Amino acid sequence: MPSGTGLEVFRDPASVAVVGASADPAKWGHWLASGALAGRHRRRVDLVNRGGGQVLGQRCVRRLSELAEPPELVALCVPANAIERIVDEALEMGVRGFVGIAAGVPDERQLAARIRAAGARLVGPNSLGIFDAASDLRLAWGGFTAGPLAIVSQSGQIGSEIATLGARQGIGIARLVSVGNQSDVTAVEMLADLVNHRLTRMIALYLESFAGGEALFETLRELRAAGKPTVVLTVGASAASSRLARSHTGSLTSSLDVVDAACRAAGVVRVQTPAQLVTAARAFLAGTAIPAGRRVAIVADSGGQGGIAADQAAGAGLSVPSFSSALSESIGSVLSAAAAHVNPVDLAGAGERELASYAETIDRALATDEVDGAILTGYFGCYGSDTPTLAERELEVAQRLGKIAATYRKPLVVHTMGSQGPVTEELWEVGVPAFPTIEAAVFALARLADFKDVKRERPAGPVRTTRIPGGYWAAREALSAYGIPFPAARLFPFVDDTLSPPYVLKAGWLDHKTEVGGIRVALADRDAVSAAYEQMRARLGDGEYVVEEQDLREDVVEMLVGVRRDPDFGLVVAIGAGGTAAQLQRDLAVELAPVSPETAAAMIDRLRCAPLLHGWRGRARTDVVALARLVAEISQLPLEFAELELNPVRVGPAGVLAVDVLLVPEEGRS
Amino acid sequence: MPSGTGLEVFRDPASVAVVGASADPAKWGHWLASGALAGRHRRRVDLVNRGGGQVLGQRCVRRLSELAEPPELVALCVPANAIERIVDEALEMGVRGFVGIAAGVPDERQLAARIRAAGARLVGPNSLGIFDAASDLRLAWGGFTAGPLAIVSQSGQIGSEIATLGARQGIGIARLVSVGNQSDVTAVEMLADLVNHRLTRMIALYLESFAGGEALFETLRELRAAGKPTVVLTVGASAASSRLARSHTGSLTSSLDVVDAACRAAGVVRVQTPAQLVTAARAFLAGTAIPAGRRVAIVADSGGQGGIAADQAAGAGLSVPSFSSALSESIGSVLSAAAAHVNPVDLAGAGERELASYAETIDRALATDEVDGAILTGYFGCYGSDTPTLAERELEVAQRLGKIAATYRKPLVVHTMGSQGPVTEELWEVGVPAFPTIEAAVFALARLADFKDVKRERPAGPVRTTRIPGGYWAAREALSAYGIPFPAARLFPFVDDTLSPPYVLKAGWLDHKTEVGGIRVALADRDAVSAAYEQMRARLGDGEYVVEEQDLREDVVEMLVGVRRDPDFGLVVAIGAGGTAAQLQRDLAVELAPVSPETAAAMIDRLRCAPLLHGWRGRARTDVVALARLVAEISQLPLEFAELELNPVRVGPAGVLAVDVLLVPEEGRS
Repeated sequence: MPSGTGLEVFRDPASVAVVGASADPAKWGHWLASGALAGRHRRRVDLVNRGGGQVLGQRCVRRLSELAEPPELVALCVPANAIERIVDEALEMGVRGFVGIAAGVPDERQLAARIRAAGARLVGPNSLGIFDAASDLRLAWGGFTAGPLAIVSQSGQIGSEIATLGARQGIGIARLVSVGNQSDVTAVEMLADLVNHRLTRMIALYLESFAGGEALFETLRELRAAGKPTVVLTVGASAASSRLARSHTGSLTSSLDVVDAACRAAGVVRVQTPAQLVTAARAFLAGTAIPAGRRVAIVADSGGQGGIAADQAAGAGLSVPSFSSALSESIGSVLSAAAAHVNPVDLAGAGERELASYAETIDRALATDEVDGAILTGYFGCYGSDTPTLAERELEVAQRLGKIAATYRKPLVVHTMGSQGPVTEELWEVGVPAFPTIEAAVFALARLADFKDVKRERPAGPVRTTRIPGGYWAAREALSAYGIPFPAARLFPFVDDTLSPPYVLKAGWLDHKTEVGGIRVALADRDAVSAAYEQMRARLGDGEYVVEEQDLREDVVEMLVGVRRDPDFGLVVAIGAGGTAAQLQRDLAVELAPVSPETAAAMIDRLRCAPLLHGWRGRARTDVVALARLVAEISQLPLEFAELELNPVRVGPAGVLAVDVLLVPEEGRS
Repeated sequence: MPSGTGLEVFRDPASVAVVGASADPAKWGHWLASGALAGRHRRRVDLVNRGGGQVLGQRCVRRLSELAEPPELVALCVPANAIERIVDEALEMGVRGFVGIAAGVPDERQLAARIRAAGARLVGPNSLGIFDAASDLRLAWGGFTAGPLAIVSQSGQIGSEIATLGARQGIGIARLVSVGNQSDVTAVEMLADLVNHRLTRMIALYLESFAGGEALFETLRELRAAGKPTVVLTVGASAASSRLARSHTGSLTSSLDVVDAACRAAGVVRVQTPAQLVTAARAFLAGTAIPAGRRVAIVADSGGQGGIAADQAAGAGLSVPSFSSALSESIGSVLSAAAAHVNPVDLAGAGERELASYAETIDRALATDEVDGAILTGYFGCYGSDTPTLAERELEVAQRLGKIAATYRKPLVVHTMGSQGPVTEELWEVGVPAFPTIEAAVFALARLADFKDVKRERPAGPVRTTRIPGGYWAAREALSAYGIPFPAARLFPFVDDTLSPPYVLKAGWLDHKTEVGGIRVALADRDAVSAAYEQMRARLGDGEYVVEEQDLREDVVEMLVGVRRDPDFGLVVAIGAGGTAAQLQRDLAVELAPVSPETAAAMIDRLRCAPLLHGWRGRARTDVVALARLVAEISQLPLEFAELELNPVRVGPAGVLAVDVLLVPEEGRS
């Protein structure tokens, strides 16, 4: 636990008081009193109720100050407008921590500041409470059983739903903190406090805002380094900043894209619903190996289920590669002629004839380096219950499946048509998660792949220090110095003869030049340039006019490359299809900056337009290596602008050329 | 039941014999014998085993011919190579029907033909069997409880999984037919046989191939007209024909796109997994209203759950429109200031203070014409179990929710954090499906919307009868006569002066003209055309060269419009983004032909590139009405080609122009 944070009081306080304790079972004050009293064996528990009387067999004092000794932690189950008075009374007594349940507390920030100034801390307000299994601290609505999952949630009810769905599937809770409005204690602090929380093996995090995302993900990295990975759940709505962005890169990199980039960079798994979170958590908590990649073998005892699993796998971003002929023959040799043994494998009755076929097939697939994991789907798990004479044999095969997965350190996930029973229990026991639907099994394996170890990206070259100036001409010059290639150019009027026609004339100081008629192309000679200049100047006025050689190379693909400063996550780099495709088709890849050329190449290959770059319908292959290098370069610029976009970047077989730059200054600068 | 089909024998045979009956509980012959015997109260059941002896207390004969009277129906639980002999023996005795379990039967088509010739019918082989709840006919692996769902499945195990998942969620089976290899009886026949099957209220269909898709969907329409909608489950792999197609339209309209088009046209719902199928079936079988559209109100008692539901709804193709200020104020008046009342609605404690708030909010939302249905997500369903004093009140609200949904004939679907219990039971009882996860609730409502009534598309004008000839010039002429606009053109050499420059020269007889250098544009005058002709002819040889006016209009968007003959479903029409976007970005809409201009307009609006047509970034709006009319025209051509593609179709503010035609002849023609 980070020392000096004052958060110890929320872990294992020596004493707690529930203010607003109630005998009415419909009231929060009843739940929290009841929960607090369950910890009476290890701490003093006081109940406070304005009317006095008894709650759950214990006498209540009428106000905190009646207590002989101050409690360390106070749970505030009173209406919002009563909180200020009680907090003042408590601080005077020396209380160290508060949990605030009510919403709508007046002047909540000021209250938090006062608590903080007194050296105490506040969780909430608008919190569902706190549960800690290690210290039997139960100050929350709902019942919890102890287990390995810690939940930190901005919404109490989502935290509660995760706990409830987890409990139905046998996952207990190490700790639950509903951070509420985070007026004082933040989710990040509570996450940091889990690094050395012994019971916690994994974290479920629900957030609606990612303000301070860099610090948050730094903490999630620390948790991961401590062997405690995080699954994060969020909703689409978030910081409105991107809506205001002026460049394409800005408006295109939605907050969720950036959250996903941060998750990839930190080995954090993002899910969309509480049920998905529980599925991912179960798979990890089974002790399953984390796959090194996304290639899976699918083994089914019905072609239909194998096909459905393959469709689901593709949808979940897993690949189902065709087996090599060696592997296919090896698997074929243990199956019948009717079986399919390419991938998916269809046992076609082989499992029924000999239960060991399941294990034998999976063993042969996982032994190769052709796949990173396997999914078994179908009837396995039903033999023993349908035919009791087969029960023991089926359990043996289940054990063997666990040994195979452990031997190769690759995950095996099972979908079984069978009910929960000895076979599924055995599978979980041996580290093979078993699910009642195909989609859950596939989803679990896909999320396990997201937990893959990540390397922190390092800049490809020396760190840049020169500032990129505004204006096309100056930006061109500065970016050229960083190795970003542009067509040869001069400021108008130009005199030397080294520039080859045809020429392009650009109103260099303008953003979105095309839209305002600030670009003329195909100018055959200097006279044409001068004529175009006169026309343009008549419309657009004086300014820095730039003359460039027109890029006439063949087989060129236009792309968009940009970098922007995200208010929550810092620098973000994006590459997308040029023209309208990045916007309308949402064909864009986003990562946190900087990225290495290797990561940039992977970003390019994620684009649906990637085949255009790799030689489309017989056209020449473009210089994708140069493009990746450009993306890496751009991602490590010393960006003193909110956004920088090269659009288009023309990628041809013999290299890349940036032909326009858009710079959006940071707010407050120009 | 269609008369004369011979299928009666699979419904309620007067007598059955199980050949291969076995005392070994691991054998199919045991399951089928046991199942058959369960129907002994209504039909004679004979067991046949080579070795004689007893099975389940009944004496076996050694061969069918030992029986005094022939059975009507024979279940074949014997190895594949024994089947032919037994079938011959049975046919001689006058058996009317067979269910074939084994896979790998030699000469299976010939066997089926022999059975058919003898006036009998065969289900299978490679079938899991048949179950019929109405007649207590149990000739299948597995146990079934009676209910409203009929399952017709090409894969026995998928049929079995649907039944198993259904049983876990309280859905019983009216009938299960595992059609296996369909050597004789087809899925279509078995589906037709369900039209007047009294117990069946809904059909679950699993198919891997859609050969004869037109007849299949005609049958599904009939079932739907009889009040029995179908949910179809399939896998991605299918007829390889599309891979061989030569035009873009051909290779782009994957079989699954066409299956989806057929589903939309017939009001059939497609799902991707057995669990999804059961979710969709449950929602329908609850007697929920089918929504008229896809606009939903989301009501949550936690902002987080409301946000997650909204994200899921968007992903499922539902829309969550902002409420009008009138509706927002109306809902706001029953909630507190802290509540959100735009959509999603966040009750923010209002439900806790007054349970009726749930019903009141939903009532106000469904009363308007702003939404077609509603989703309630969160804590409702937990009050009574957490706080028994609230149990009765919560049940009352559940009843009221059912009345509200019934009053407005709009679906209400609930996600509850609570366990199965009195409240969820009450909700199902009153036609409000309640699910334990947000995604299941949203998915259920989205699939209910798919069940919407469909009108059969009728051609927009008189049916065409003239044949479209091959070759660009002749095709242009014929298509122009049908109202498809092309630029003015002449065959080279041209003499009259009515054609305005610049000109385009095309090698009219060639497909994919651009790729082979068969197009020259921007030819300023006749001399330029002649020069281009000489060059092109030197490379491409003699042929029909076409000179066209070049389309120089501004604000033009290039699209692709095509029609092709699908081997399973007949004529299919497609529209997509032009250039590489339709292919790489998969930005394409597909429907069965013909389509009305209204449907064509809806197809256009489904495209991600639609904003380009509707006036992008201040550009002029293009003539989308003319484009929709062109799509409708193309969709009703008397296509004597395998594929016809207009690519590109140039859509400008003042109309459309087709500037190339690709015709792919039917196999065997030229």
